[in-house]
Amino acid sequence: MTGVSDNSRKEKSYLLIEDKVGQIQDAFDSGIVNSVFVKNLVVGLHASEIAQIIQYIDYSYREALITLLKPFDPEVFLFLDEHLREELIAVLSSKEIAAIVEVMESDDALSILLDLDEEQQRKILAKLPKTVGNSLERKLRYPPESAGRLMQNEVLALPQSWTIKASLEYIANEGSLPSNFHDVFVVDEENRPVGVLSLSKLVKSVKKDLLQDVMTGSVRTIKAQLNQEEVAFLFRSYDLMSAPVVDADGKIVGMITIDDVVDIIERRAEEEIMHMGRITTSDFYIPVFRTSLIRIQWLIVAFVDAILSSVVIDQFQSTFEGRAALTVLMPIAAAMGGNSGIQSVTVTVRALATRELSSLNMWRFAVKELAVSMLNGSVFAVVIGLISFIWFHELLISVVLSSAVVFSMCWAGFAGTFLPIFIEKLGYDSALSSGPLLSMTTDILGFTSFLWLAQVLIL
Amino acid sequence: MTGVSDNSRKEKSYLLIEDKVGQIQDAFDSGIVNSVFVKNLVVGLHASEIAQIIQYIDYSYREALITLLKPFDPEVFLFLDEHLREELIAVLSSKEIAAIVEVMESDDALSILLDLDEEQQRKILAKLPKTVGNSLERKLRYPPESAGRLMQNEVLALPQSWTIKASLEYIANEGSLPSNFHDVFVVDEENRPVGVLSLSKLVKSVKKDLLQDVMTGSVRTIKAQLNQEEVAFLFRSYDLMSAPVVDADGKIVGMITIDDVVDIIERRAEEEIMHMGRITTSDFYIPVFRTSLIRIQWLIVAFVDAILSSVVIDQFQSTFEGRAALTVLMPIAAAMGGNSGIQSVTVTVRALATRELSSLNMWRFAVKELAVSMLNGSVFAVVIGLISFIWFHELLISVVLSSAVVFSMCWAGFAGTFLPIFIEKLGYDSALSSGPLLSMTTDILGFTSFLWLAQVLIL
Repeated sequence: MTGVSDNSRKEKSYLLIEDKVGQIQDAFDSGIVNSVFVKNLVVGLHASEIAQIIQYIDYSYREALITLLKPFDPEVFLFLDEHLREELIAVLSSKEIAAIVEVMESDDALSILLDLDEEQQRKILAKLPKTVGNSLERKLRYPPESAGRLMQNEVLALPQSWTIKASLEYIANEGSLPSNFHDVFVVDEENRPVGVLSLSKLVKSVKKDLLQDVMTGSVRTIKAQLNQEEVAFLFRSYDLMSAPVVDADGKIVGMITIDDVVDIIERRAEEEIMHMGRITTSDFYIPVFRTSLIRIQWLIVAFVDAILSSVVIDQFQSTFEGRAALTVLMPIAAAMGGNSGIQSVTVTVRALATRELSSLNMWRFAVKELAVSMLNGSVFAVVIGLISFIWFHELLISVVLSSAVVFSMCWAGFAGTFLPIFIEKLGYDSALSSGPLLSMTTDILGFTSFLWLAQVLIL
Repeated sequence: MTGVSDNSRKEKSYLLIEDKVGQIQDAFDSGIVNSVFVKNLVVGLHASEIAQIIQYIDYSYREALITLLKPFDPEVFLFLDEHLREELIAVLSSKEIAAIVEVMESDDALSILLDLDEEQQRKILAKLPKTVGNSLERKLRYPPESAGRLMQNEVLALPQSWTIKASLEYIANEGSLPSNFHDVFVVDEENRPVGVLSLSKLVKSVKKDLLQDVMTGSVRTIKAQLNQEEVAFLFRSYDLMSAPVVDADGKIVGMITIDDVVDIIERRAEEEIMHMGRITTSDFYIPVFRTSLIRIQWLIVAFVDAILSSVVIDQFQSTFEGRAALTVLMPIAAAMGGNSGIQSVTVTVRALATRELSSLNMWRFAVKELAVSMLNGSVFAVVIGLISFIWFHELLISVVLSSAVVFSMCWAGFAGTFLPIFIEKLGYDSALSSGPLLSMTTDILGFTSFLWLAQVLIL
């Protein structure tokens, strides 16, 4: 039931990092560490490798290491976990941060700025050259999680009347272009995108005349206000490498590239995984007390759930008298309902996230989920009926337990499908709350159905 | 505790699709459907939109719709869920499939071919032009999930001695290049990559002389045998847009681009989410019986878990006599341990997947997890102690329950950290099996600790 994973995971670069972290920690331990030593160790490393060293090193050495590494490659910031980034920024002066922000592309610069509080943001914006500062302030005015905040302002937009030759010459000579780009956007006189072509197509078309002869006439633009999740969906739907971002008038104001979208996809996936595990946010780099607070939120829900289960059991106290089998078999129906419900919730939440589930196929999907849970419920009802009869030789108790298992698992299939859909319709995040809320219903109904049936049929 | 999600989700294109699906279903219902009608409805749509229509439409019409759409854009295949792709391929002749495979880039063609059984593969390979067929057969020889299977053979590799001008001319005139590319790889006489530059840099450097003057001298190559997950890790670590794939001798044999990597990242994330929900694979498009079989696997584990819990309770039968409070409070310690354990498992599994957790920081991480669970365990122990005392006025029972809760939650923190690490070390997938195995221990220990303590302290 488990797949053997690939064992070639530990690549050379990983072992190299591990080795360097060991050397730096040893140097700290023996007190012989200094800036020259550390810098020699990291010379030639990629920014992401330096970021890995900072992430792996014992936290007691982290601040000292960061100080010794100064001034370092601004890129390092981008590869750090956001919690560590905050830690790192705290030991830099606003002048040092401004110097880092200044050399970055605007989307990366903004992501650094967003880690700071408003006062720090103001301080740093004041230290930046006016053009850089203004452009960042403009981006800050877009709503959080919007395309406007994700985009870079640097974009290559050429008038449709231009020739291909002139375009190539312009690219060769113009200094303000993005440092790296995949697509060329073609605009009308109002600066509105009317076409797109990849740079490779432009180079291949050097013998053709005008841009408008070779461009693709339909271009998928992204409104600056659009939510980033929606941006990722568009990129995936239309296999885009980059897309122009437009303002309310449809004028081009920047572009988003696929590598920014990869970040969004990864962040969303991480969020979904954490939510499935009943944690609001990944807390790997967060210290003990804050981690404890983060996790306690959903433990409170689980706790209320457990107390409610106890209250249910309490209602049926008289049922247990002289019936040890009931006490022993009591948790089974609730457990089977809970586990089968989590499966339905997982598939539903995921299908909602990928938009494979919509109002178009909702009923079809619900019928299928119900069929699956009836089928699996019946299988386990038969098995547990047999086992419990062999165990306690009480036919009625076996019938009660089997019925409770079927009922719990059918409920789990039904609620596991509609609960996430309902939560989503209300505008909330279904990944986070569906699981715990469902467990509450499967626990309460699992215990109630078993004990109530026992009371009615046996006593 | 839940975040309000964005409500602008339903974009124009989505509503358009919904509308068209409705029209097609109505046409089928009233029997007026024909090929012209359907083709008129989908004309001008992007391949991904046609794929969405196929996915949303009622499954009873799906096969008929597919037949009416023939011959259709090969791209549609790539946007379909893999289970639907199988369904779709079943209604096409091998000649039709060969025609589709022939026009695709080699990585996409291979992904279609891999959905078929070996005999069908042979049939289709035989129908392809020799060069296409040979190149696909060569790719099939690479191990599953390897870089070799992900790459496209079409790659732009230029000798380092070339001038920039000659390179641009070559790109403009050569027909066998990738249809779209971002980077230019520079190779030595043996065809081994020695440098890389983005196409945008090449165009910007037209006034410089040689390729080797402007290229980045270090290039991250990917071995054709490398696991695709490792490929995704390299792309993310080094912010790559594309990378050359090399054979055992270091000679360039193809390239992988970031959009292929996005597919890998999404597939991995989906897998991880499913595994957290105790399902081996996403079954959204899989029919009832097969879905039931897929889900029953982990339900069996949950079932064994439930039976074992019952066996534990059975051992302590005598303890319950005349002590209703014990029956009522029995499930609490196990439930709290289970929920807190899932949180630790989630963070650990995720940190292993992203490689943030390694042998370098394992102990530090484990100490933190234990501290968090002791802290949260103590909080809930105090609360449940108070509640249960107010409820039953039996100090000893409250002490027993509080102790069992602390013990269960500490165990959950410890096992939730080391169980995934241990499973991973054995070479298995920790995301899939950690949760169910952990639940088993928290259930058994939760019930045992509570009932055993009750037996020892109270009776």
